[in-house]
This record gives sequence, structure tokens and C-alpha cells, in this order.
Amino acid sequence: MDVQLTLHKMVERAEKLFPKKQIISRTASGIFRYGYREMGERTRRLSSALEKIGVQRGDKVGTLAWNDHRHLEAYFGIPGMGAVLHTINIRLSPQHIAYIINHAEDKVLLIDQDFIPLIETIKDELKTVQAYVVLADNSELKDSKLNPLYSYEDLLAKADPQYQFPDDLNENDPAGMCYTSATTGSPKGVIYSHRGITLHSMALGLADTAAISESDVCMPVVPMFHANAWGMPFAATWFGSSQVLPGPWFTPELLAKLIHTERVTITAGVPTIWLGLLKELENSGEVYDMSSLRAVLCGGSAAPLGMIRTFETKYNIPFIHAYGMTETTPLVTLSRLKSYQTDLSDEEKLVIRAKQGYVVPGLEIKVINDNGETAWNGEEMGELLVRGPWIANAYYNDERSKDAFKDGWLYTGDIVTIDEEGVIRIADRTKDLVKSGGEWISTIDLENALMGHDGVFEAAVVGVPHPKWQERPVACIVLKPNASVTKEELLDFLKPQFPKWWLPDDIVFMDEIPKTSVGKFLKATLREQLKEHLTV
Amino acid sequence: MDVQLTLHKMVERAEKLFPKKQIISRTASGIFRYGYREMGERTRRLSSALEKIGVQRGDKVGTLAWNDHRHLEAYFGIPGMGAVLHTINIRLSPQHIAYIINHAEDKVLLIDQDFIPLIETIKDELKTVQAYVVLADNSELKDSKLNPLYSYEDLLAKADPQYQFPDDLNENDPAGMCYTSATTGSPKGVIYSHRGITLHSMALGLADTAAISESDVCMPVVPMFHANAWGMPFAATWFGSSQVLPGPWFTPELLAKLIHTERVTITAGVPTIWLGLLKELENSGEVYDMSSLRAVLCGGSAAPLGMIRTFETKYNIPFIHAYGMTETTPLVTLSRLKSYQTDLSDEEKLVIRAKQGYVVPGLEIKVINDNGETAWNGEEMGELLVRGPWIANAYYNDERSKDAFKDGWLYTGDIVTIDEEGVIRIADRTKDLVKSGGEWISTIDLENALMGHDGVFEAAVVGVPHPKWQERPVACIVLKPNASVTKEELLDFLKPQFPKWWLPDDIVFMDEIPKTSVGKFLKATLREQLKEHLTV
Repeated sequence: MDVQLTLHKMVERAEKLFPKKQIISRTASGIFRYGYREMGERTRRLSSALEKIGVQRGDKVGTLAWNDHRHLEAYFGIPGMGAVLHTINIRLSPQHIAYIINHAEDKVLLIDQDFIPLIETIKDELKTVQAYVVLADNSELKDSKLNPLYSYEDLLAKADPQYQFPDDLNENDPAGMCYTSATTGSPKGVIYSHRGITLHSMALGLADTAAISESDVCMPVVPMFHANAWGMPFAATWFGSSQVLPGPWFTPELLAKLIHTERVTITAGVPTIWLGLLKELENSGEVYDMSSLRAVLCGGSAAPLGMIRTFETKYNIPFIHAYGMTETTPLVTLSRLKSYQTDLSDEEKLVIRAKQGYVVPGLEIKVINDNGETAWNGEEMGELLVRGPWIANAYYNDERSKDAFKDGWLYTGDIVTIDEEGVIRIADRTKDLVKSGGEWISTIDLENALMGHDGVFEAAVVGVPHPKWQERPVACIVLKPNASVTKEELLDFLKPQFPKWWLPDDIVFMDEIPKTSVGKFLKATLREQLKEHLTV
Repeated sequence: MDVQLTLHKMVERAEKLFPKKQIISRTASGIFRYGYREMGERTRRLSSALEKIGVQRGDKVGTLAWNDHRHLEAYFGIPGMGAVLHTINIRLSPQHIAYIINHAEDKVLLIDQDFIPLIETIKDELKTVQAYVVLADNSELKDSKLNPLYSYEDLLAKADPQYQFPDDLNENDPAGMCYTSATTGSPKGVIYSHRGITLHSMALGLADTAAISESDVCMPVVPMFHANAWGMPFAATWFGSSQVLPGPWFTPELLAKLIHTERVTITAGVPTIWLGLLKELENSGEVYDMSSLRAVLCGGSAAPLGMIRTFETKYNIPFIHAYGMTETTPLVTLSRLKSYQTDLSDEEKLVIRAKQGYVVPGLEIKVINDNGETAWNGEEMGELLVRGPWIANAYYNDERSKDAFKDGWLYTGDIVTIDEEGVIRIADRTKDLVKSGGEWISTIDLENALMGHDGVFEAAVVGVPHPKWQERPVACIVLKPNASVTKEELLDFLKPQFPKWWLPDDIVFMDEIPKTSVGKFLKATLREQLKEHLTV
């Protein structure tokens, strides 16, 4: 049958099969709970309300919102009526936010009340927005310079609770979009199709990936404005899982409490979040019961092996390391032991699981070296290429597409090794890799080693032009408060861990490493600062 | 990305990620073992060999084969080069087999040596077959009337081990086909697309369905000529599971031994198989270790509640009841408890799990009564309708399509109830249902009750024309050897279990109930025999 893979089918299934299963949403005024029957009805109302205020198929509707039930309704209500859910990263600079709203041509913005002041500061720059909708617990609008301004709750109250999602959407129609936070230049947009998100959701339910199930209580800590919160809200709704949405300005303490009280079984977020949670667990004694957790899904950047070990051995919380990016919806690889690896020692298993894992069913990967040859021996570094039905095929209206999308593959810009088990390990970003005398040096490996030193707070390694070797590594170090460590001590510390030619040519101590608005090292800035460091 | 969901990607993934995982295949000469690397290479050789003997894209290639490694290679090698895998039910009558080979226009037949004599008897009727290939352990051909006749092993030996599967297949291209065993008229053919099988395989890997995983050892007992062995060989290969293929003429003893020695974790088959296995377990004392089994998947017809209870309570083997048909690839519903049902009593849980379960992600179902209205209250019977990307959209070149495929739905011909949890229970086949005075009576419910009587060996209930009530039920009974039971005793036995108007108007004792070649009751024949039973 020619039946299209469209998102509204997920919410229709949840309404029919799991009307009683709960969504637990933390908002500005506390915890709000409802079941999928009501969630479905409000989602239908939202679709209907959007039509009433003039949204048409293919229009972009932006969201500036926390992880809460209204954002979840937007996840289905916007694509459900044929429009495009454009989740906007609230941590970007106001200029970047204005850029992406204009670039996406958002027609309507759904805005959490916390971000109204932010949008007010850029409202005169917004060229396509025809209406603003405030996401708030009460329907009374505060004074605002935004116009026209609607109350979300008010719109829903007047809308059709029995709205029928159109059955003639094509699965290749755009359903969502998200912009990456670029380290240089403007953010780049990615479109997600109904088909891509549906297949990605199915992949998340596989026993060998995240195994999201009706019996789960899923808590996406990763923001819903980051690559669909890794697809968890879609999969959880489709499969009828309970969902816990942690809302605005959460703390590690709050997350620990939610896991404890709501009996969360699976949660997802970046390493920083889990470091914070670990600290909270360590400081709080045995206040929290974490025994409900069957998996902590971690991605966004590499999780330190020590952190994985602490989660598993000290707290008995299974940890799943994954890899993906905005362009890939995002799941690409996921670290699970194969059945014949269960006899390895705990430490051997940990080393495997600290890598990024092997490719999930539905995608293909390939690693190519500088000469375009396939590297697949566990040693040779190469760029990771990805292909599959939930991988973007371009940046949205962006000339930079041609650099990343070539011959039917996404060039991820990530430098990895891949071993005989198909397991990848991220070694660097293409543009950060140090190319010394024709050989590659991983800055991430050096940074991880340096951060393993007691006195080091942050370490960023960059390639600096060198008269003989083209480039050589230089390490930029921020010491911990009151730590006193010399360059020689750090080099001695590195020596046993690396070949001699990997060791940095210099170590530069700094007060601070420059970062993007989302906290990534601005290595381009460091390279600019240091460009004559080894030649003058 | 416009990446097509095609079957060869499954075997490519298995070759790369799971080269060492084993396929254990029982053939005429014993147990044969190999890994996915070799399986992949032989599959490539098969694709190459088929091209060499003139098979082109879209051509049908028939298989008459057991569940073994060559049949598995055919599962991927035939669609891998763009042809169509037509699995032929070896249990059909020779006339029906000739009919479907001609109707499908099979160009080549792959034939297990056991079925060469069968094909020889019908060879003069076959209009489209241009070559025969013998599936046998040694490559020497016996004398045969089939011409041209090739040895499979010989063809593979001469073929290209590095054959590249074409990358330009469309996911909507036909990949497989299968004919249903009709109770009246000629068999009806169904086409499976690459897309349909891929999505169905993904559904089989979901945590909430069969959860097929790399860590599984999968044994499809259901024949590979029945609806793709329920898709298990595809899913198991894609996900890198070990596979145990039980081969020709297996017995319950052999199945028990394979489970024991190969540590099978999941197996699939019809209730008759599991009744046989239970008997073997009961007769053999504690010879077999069944502790590796995490699931017995059962479908094809309804599993008796008592059998499920015995598996679970006596042998601690989890039992999963499922529903599907040839037209649905086949998985439609699957019986799993919801998370909030875990507190029910064991008996309450068993009653839920003996039903056919709720619809898997990706499909939609609907139940309509005689007036075309939706029935969804757990009581009212209606016909089950199914829609989704792995549901056939027609019978292959068959005018009967218009009766079953209407308004975008497959009319299954199964009469079910569906309760508020979305759980269906099969009550009857549309054409077997008794319509008495405008009310429906389930013949299956009456038969199950009658078979619960100690003296009854088989029971078939049919609707017989009646002057006042249009139709009334009549039960046809085969007693167990030496049993002596009267009509009155049986009616008294039924009375407490049913409303009075459900009780059969008569009970007819027979020596044998007429059956199709695959063992289904020929109720049409019974109705013809009894058509004047209540009027004369």
C-alpha cells in the first residue's frame, strides 16, 4: 500500500492505545500532568488554531520554548497540519536568532514567556513573522511590544478539539527544521521530513539501540530545540511511553528529584548534564533512588570514560554512548557491546563502550582518509561519511551545502577511526585536526589527556603553522584555581601516553578559552591568535 | 536524503558488522555452519549466477525449499539483483503449485532435491520456467527430466564473489511474493516491496514487538515459504542475530534438541508446532535445557490459552501471541501487556495475552460492523481492516482484489472484537460467521468450547440456512477414538458458557472433517453438505 510515513499517525496511535499514559511537564508554575487522550486533543486544537491564524501547509512555525507539554504539542500540532516545526536554539546570540528566523521565513513564532523580552529586542529585524503566540500557563497576556500577540491557551480554547489531521501529506514533505550553531559564519539550517523523523523514531525503538518502549518513562534533558531532543519526544509518543519534560532553568538537583519521584527509566543529554548529575548524587548522600533508570543516553560530545565508569560501577546506572549531529536527526551510531564481547573484562568492555559505537540499522557509514581511500582498520584516521533516509541532503538555502553534501554522502567533518567491529571513535573535527608533516594528530586525544591532569581545568589544542612540518600542535591551558603547573610538567605528563611527534610544540597558559554562545571552544579564534607563534 | 529502503543493505550491514555471527543450517546431510561474511559472499555469488542464467530485474524466481542457508541466500540474492523472490508453498496440491508458478510467471525455479519429483510431475504444465536449479549439498546432479537443470553449488562456484548489488533499485519495486492457500478457488498472490519488507523488519526489532536483537539466536520454525517466515530471516540478518534454520522434515524432538544445543533465544511458529514441542518436553523428562528461550512467537491461528499457560508456568518460556496474514507481510498485532497491567493476577494477564494484542507501530487498524460503523467496545464483533506500508494493495493480477482491498484498507475477512486497550480478539472469519436473526455468532468460540470437552477430537461449526433465523449454527464433531458422547451431553456442556441463542441447533457426528491441503477446515464443503439440514 502507498501509505505515507507521517507524524500525525504517532499521536493518533497514542490517543487510541495509550490514552491513560502520562506526560509529566514542569512549567513555570509547577508540575502539570495529563494523558495522551488530552495531549492528542490539545494537539488537534493547536493544528486547528494555526490554520485559523493563517498558517498554511509548508509555512514555517518557529518555537522558542523549553522542554514542556506545550512544546510537545507543537512537535505534533505544527507538522500535523502540514506546516514545519522550526525549533529555535534559545542559547544563540540575538543576532543569530534574528538571522535564522528571517532565513527560515518563519510566519508564526510560539514563544515561552521567558523569551518574550529577547524577541522584543529583535522584533524590528524580523521580516516574515506575522503573529506571535505566548506559551504560558495562564491565558492573560502581559503588555508586550510584539504584535499581533496571541495567548496559546486562549487560541486552544477556541479551536477545534476534533480537528482531523490531513491524510494527504507526503512523507517527503518537510516536518521540522533546526539550525546548527556554527563556530564560524551564520548558522546553517537543516530540514527534517516526515519520513526521516518516522524512520528515525523506529530506529530509536529497536532493541539494540535505545529500545524505547511503552514501559519506559522517558526524560529528554537534551533541549527540544536541539535536533528534536534526539527524537525522543516523537518515539516516546508513538510507542506510548510516559514522558517527563523538565521545563525551564532546571538544576542537577531538580533532575535527580524528577528521576526519583517519576521513576524515570531512560534519559538523554550531553556529558555536562551527567557530570552535574553525578556531582549532585555525590553531594547528596543517598537521598535519591536512581534504581528506575535503565539507560542514560549520552551524546553531543564524547563522554569521558571515567564518567561512564562512575555511573555504572558506583551508581549501577547503565550508560549508552551515542553519536549524531543536527544534520542526522541525529542518531548515527550507538555504543552497545556485541553478544560475544560479554566475556571481556569490565575494563575492556568500558573501553569499547566509551567509543561512539556502530551504525544503527537504516544508515550506512564510511570513513575515508586524505586520499579518499576507505579506512577501516581501527588505526587510520579518516573523515566519517554518513548516508541514509534520515540524513539531511543539504543545508537549507545555503551555498555551504556543496562542502558537506557530496556524491550522496554527508561529510560530517568528524575525524574518526573505525575498527573491525565497525565501532567508531571520534578523534577530531576535520578543521581542528593537526596535519604535521603529512601525518594527522588528534587534538581531542591530546585535550582529553591534558584534562586528565589534576591541575588542568580546560585544554584546547590547535594546529599552528610551522616552517618545517606545515603544522604543529600547541596546547592552550586554563589551570584550576590555585593550581601551579609548569609547561615541562605537562609535557612530561603527556610523554608516556603518545608518540613523541604528537607532543605539543608549546603550551600556552590562558585565563580563559574563547567559546561560542553554546559553549564550544572557538578554535578558529585560537588559531588566529597563535598563527605566528611558531614562526616568529 | 533520497535513500531507498532496499533489502541488500541488510546483508551488507551483516557482512560488515557481524561477519563472525553464525548461521546454523540443518540440511539433508547434517548441520552446516557459517558466518555472515561467507553468507554475504554466497549471496553475492547467487545474484551474479542468476544474472548469468538470464534472470533480469523484475523477473520472478520461485523457490521450493526448506528453512536452510540456501533459502536464506535466496531471500537476499534474488531481490538483491532486482528479481522477485517467489516462495512457493510445497504443501499445496501439485495443481495449485503449477497454477501459481504459471500465474506468477516464474522464470527460474530453485528446488530442494526433495521436491524434484514433484516438479517433474507438473513440468509439462509450466509455461514460463526457463531453468531449474537444484538446491543440494553436493554439486553432482542426479538424472532428472527437468531441463535445463543446474546445480546451485556449481553455479555459485563459478559466480562472482564480489558482485555489487545494484544501488538504483526503487524501494517500491517488488522484492518478494507469496500465494495464500485459498479454501475456495485458486491461490491468490501477494507482492512484497523492498520498502514493505524493510519497514516490517524494523517493526520486528522494536522493544515492544519481537525485539529481535544482535544478541538473539533466532529459529524460524514457520516455513520460509509462509509469508517470509514472518520476516524473521530478514530482521535477524539485518540486526546480526545468529540464526538456526531447522531444515527438512523436522520433528518436535529435533526442535527441542536445536533449542538446547544452539541456545535458541527466540523461535516462531504455528500453535500445532508448539503443541508438539510441549508433548516432547513432557515425554522426555528433563533432558532439554530450554532456559535460553526468551520468547516463543506464535501466530497463524489462535493459540489455546491452556497451551500458553503450560509454556509459561510449567516451563518458564515466555509466549508471544501475534496476528497477521500473508497479505500483511505478516505482522499486524502482537500481544504484550501494557506497563500498568503488571499488577493484574496471573490469570487476568493470561486472558489478555491469549488475545491477539494491539497494533504494532506503523500500521493502523479499524473494526467495522455490518453497517460499516466502527466497533471499539470489546463486545461488538466487526471485520478487521488494516492499512499501512507493509500491507499489500492488491492480489497479483487477480479480479478478487476488489473484494478485499477497498478505500485504501485491506478487509481481512477476520471478525474480531476490539477493547478499550486496542486489543483484538479473533472471533471468526467473515464467511464462516453465523448470522442468526441479525445477530452474529462466532463459530470459533463455539469450536474452542467444544474442543475443551474430553471426548471431542475436532469440532467445526457452520451456519446453515434456517427458515426463521436466516442461519443457525450446526456443529460437526469428530470424537476421540473410543469416546462416547451424545449430542445432549455436548449441548449441556456448552450451555453455561454461552447465551442460549448461540447454542447449535444440531450436532452432527462425523468420521473426519474435510480439510484443505494445508490442514484448514473446508467449511464451504460442510455448508454445502448441510445446506438443507435445518429446512427439510
